[in-house]
Amino acid sequence: MRSFTDYLFFHTKNRRELVNITGAVESCLKKAKIQEGLCLVSAMHITAGIWVNDEEEGLKQDFMDLLERLAPPGDYRHHLTGEDNGDAHLKRTLTGYQAVLPVTGGKLDLGPWEQIFYAEFDGQRRKRVVIKIIGD
Amino acid sequence: MRSFTDYLFFHTKNRRELVNITGAVESCLKKAKIQEGLCLVSAMHITAGIWVNDEEEGLKQDFMDLLERLAPPGDYRHHLTGEDNGDAHLKRTLTGYQAVLPVTGGKLDLGPWEQIFYAEFDGQRRKRVVIKIIGD
Amino acid sequence: MRSFTDYLFFHTKNRRELVNITGAVESCLKKAKIQEGLCLVSAMHITAGIWVNDEEEGLKQDFMDLLERLAPPGDYRHHLTGEDNGDAHLKRTLTGYQAVLPVTGGKLDLGPWEQIFYAEFDGQRRKRVVIKIIGD
Repeated sequence: MRSFTDYLFFHTKNRRELVNITGAVESCLKKAKIQEGLCLVSAMHITAGIWVNDEEEGLKQDFMDLLERLAPPGDYRHHLTGEDNGDAHLKRTLTGYQAVLPVTGGKLDLGPWEQIFYAEFDGQRRKRVVIKIIGD
Repeated sequence: MRSFTDYLFFHTKNRRELVNITGAVESCLKKAKIQEGLCLVSAMHITAGIWVNDEEEGLKQDFMDLLERLAPPGDYRHHLTGEDNGDAHLKRTLTGYQAVLPVTGGKLDLGPWEQIFYAEFDGQRRKRVVIKIIGD
Repeated sequence: MRSFTDYLFFHTKNRRELVNITGAVESCLKKAKIQEGLCLVSAMHITAGIWVNDEEEGLKQDFMDLLERLAPPGDYRHHLTGEDNGDAHLKRTLTGYQAVLPVTGGKLDLGPWEQIFYAEFDGQRRKRVVIKIIGD
């Protein structure tokens, strides 16, 4: 069994942002030289998620609107600690924060429109995603 | 390490449908001849999800009602592209679209009531789920 | 490839409870003697989830409040079976019920604040989480 570990770093311009990382994950897989296996992509900071969906501007806004409606910024108990990002923790929860991607014939075995997004909900600072690939 | 890849195809009669695929996943595992490992089940189309819960009619309706309440059909920005399935993309997001199942002693190591469902939110056309099993 | 399987048991005092299991998962990894791989943590009962977020009292309450708002106790079709825990099934759905954790250098490769929680939504009885680790 082979394994490969790498980290992607982000420092978004905006507080909330969707960054398409499909190409970056494919680059990791190329370096990993793994033909058959599983590729984990996981947001290491608890105010960011991973979203696998369509690269379409309108839908990306619809997704952010959904989260804004279900987990709006507001007066959270978490803010008693001095933080102001309670909504970002909840947005990560509803979005999910990791994807496990099949690797088949040396490629990410994604559906025709599946794109991988880093979903930042409290950005403008340095944050990290771990890529872990195991297989043969 | 051994690996196994297969695809399940769906063409549901209804636009929204829950299809119990536990038996189909077990059949894949039997073919894979893997005793200890991990089995990924992932919906490859971005308007479908994977739900692991109870095979109980009332609950299945409660689940669909929850999604209809949180992400109702409506006027989404995504529809400016000509699509009309914005809600289906959001329902996939809230449901989750994959499961990673432990394989122990050659069997899916599921809880007593865990059943695996393909959750279709925009069906009536051909769609796919990938099954990827790795282990020994 | 090596593999390791274990189960954590819970019998919570309260119906709804968050139990930090990071240390318990780390103990499993130590026993597994795996240096590089993937560690699956999955709630085997369909009224419980796995939440990876911050060990902060206010936020934990905010998270439970979010679920109470989105999937409140109420009159569910599931209750026609005699059950009264429809909301717990839906809370598991929104939370997610599993985490796949990277194992790097013999340790869980978690972000600085990532803690693993067993999220009980219908407790006061014996329930189970499976830990499955594969790697080398």
